[in-house]
Amino acid sequence: MEIEVKFRVAFEQAREAIESLGAELAGEELQEDVYFSISLPELLRVRKVENIGRAFLTYKRIADPGRNEEFDEIEVEVSDFERTVEILRRLGFQEDIVVRKRRLVYRLGEVTFELSDVEGLGAFLDIEVISDDVDEAKRKIWKVARRLGLGEEDVEPRLYQELIREGQYRS
Amino acid sequence: MEIEVKFRVAFEQAREAIESLGAELAGEELQEDVYFSISLPELLRVRKVENIGRAFLTYKRIADPGRNEEFDEIEVEVSDFERTVEILRRLGFQEDIVVRKRRLVYRLGEVTFELSDVEGLGAFLDIEVISDDVDEAKRKIWKVARRLGLGEEDVEPRLYQELIREGQYRS
Repeated sequence: MEIEVKFRVAFEQAREAIESLGAELAGEELQEDVYFSISLPELLRVRKVENIGRAFLTYKRIADPGRNEEFDEIEVEVSDFERTVEILRRLGFQEDIVVRKRRLVYRLGEVTFELSDVEGLGAFLDIEVISDDVDEAKRKIWKVARRLGLGEEDVEPRLYQELIREGQYRS
Repeated sequence: MEIEVKFRVAFEQAREAIESLGAELAGEELQEDVYFSISLPELLRVRKVENIGRAFLTYKRIADPGRNEEFDEIEVEVSDFERTVEILRRLGFQEDIVVRKRRLVYRLGEVTFELSDVEGLGAFLDIEVISDDVDEAKRKIWKVARRLGLGEEDVEPRLYQELIREGQYRS
């Protein structure tokens, strides 16, 4: 199970705080995520990581819909982004929402920090732990979150694609 | 477009005939193909090539249903066979037929020869040309087929998964 909590942050301030914890930069990615129109709590995504020329097909099932912190995730790398999108189109799935972001990935022990500047939405920090013990994972996440000065009031429970859809409706 | 004609053959005899044409052996593959239950003329397959540790996700649309010689094919390599099967299961597709074969692949110019020993079905030779000119492709296929001593009476129009399904009904 992938356990993660998403926080709204200021990008540079969060970056400095993460680095001051001693977390190591694992990579920088320019991601284009295409989400297909399947119904929550399921998610179907094809991700292109543009700067490293890789692509991934991902299925997720949200175990705690609404909170969106617990994900049953199955992912494979695919050799071609466009062809994978085309296969899903042929199978009847429609492209729904596209999310573009610049993401810095840091690691500190079992904790992964995904610091993202999301096109049209601003900056977010996902703090993630892979574990089958949800409570223990959340304790680990909140321990480092507090060290970064983040609290419950900074949590953003909505999915990126939900935020983008809401933005489209507003505009 | 993938144009191919499938013939029933005797394995060793066909192998010698192909090699005597000067075709080059491109590889030997032990394939396990899982076909999912979508309706003809569409096909959805995950292939594991066991001896080289690779896997592929393939969508095909048969352009000439019944004859099954013209295929609109979209394929990507995937990093993990089991996970890809699991993603398709989660998306609601059911595993239908499994086809296992040992296949020798030969190339001669634009023509690909796939000589297969299919578990439970026997030996087949697929002669394939990738082209948008169907008539020209078929001329090329039949030119080499005749040089191999193959005629219309040797053609097997049924798909491997159809042959296996028919075999299951018989048994």
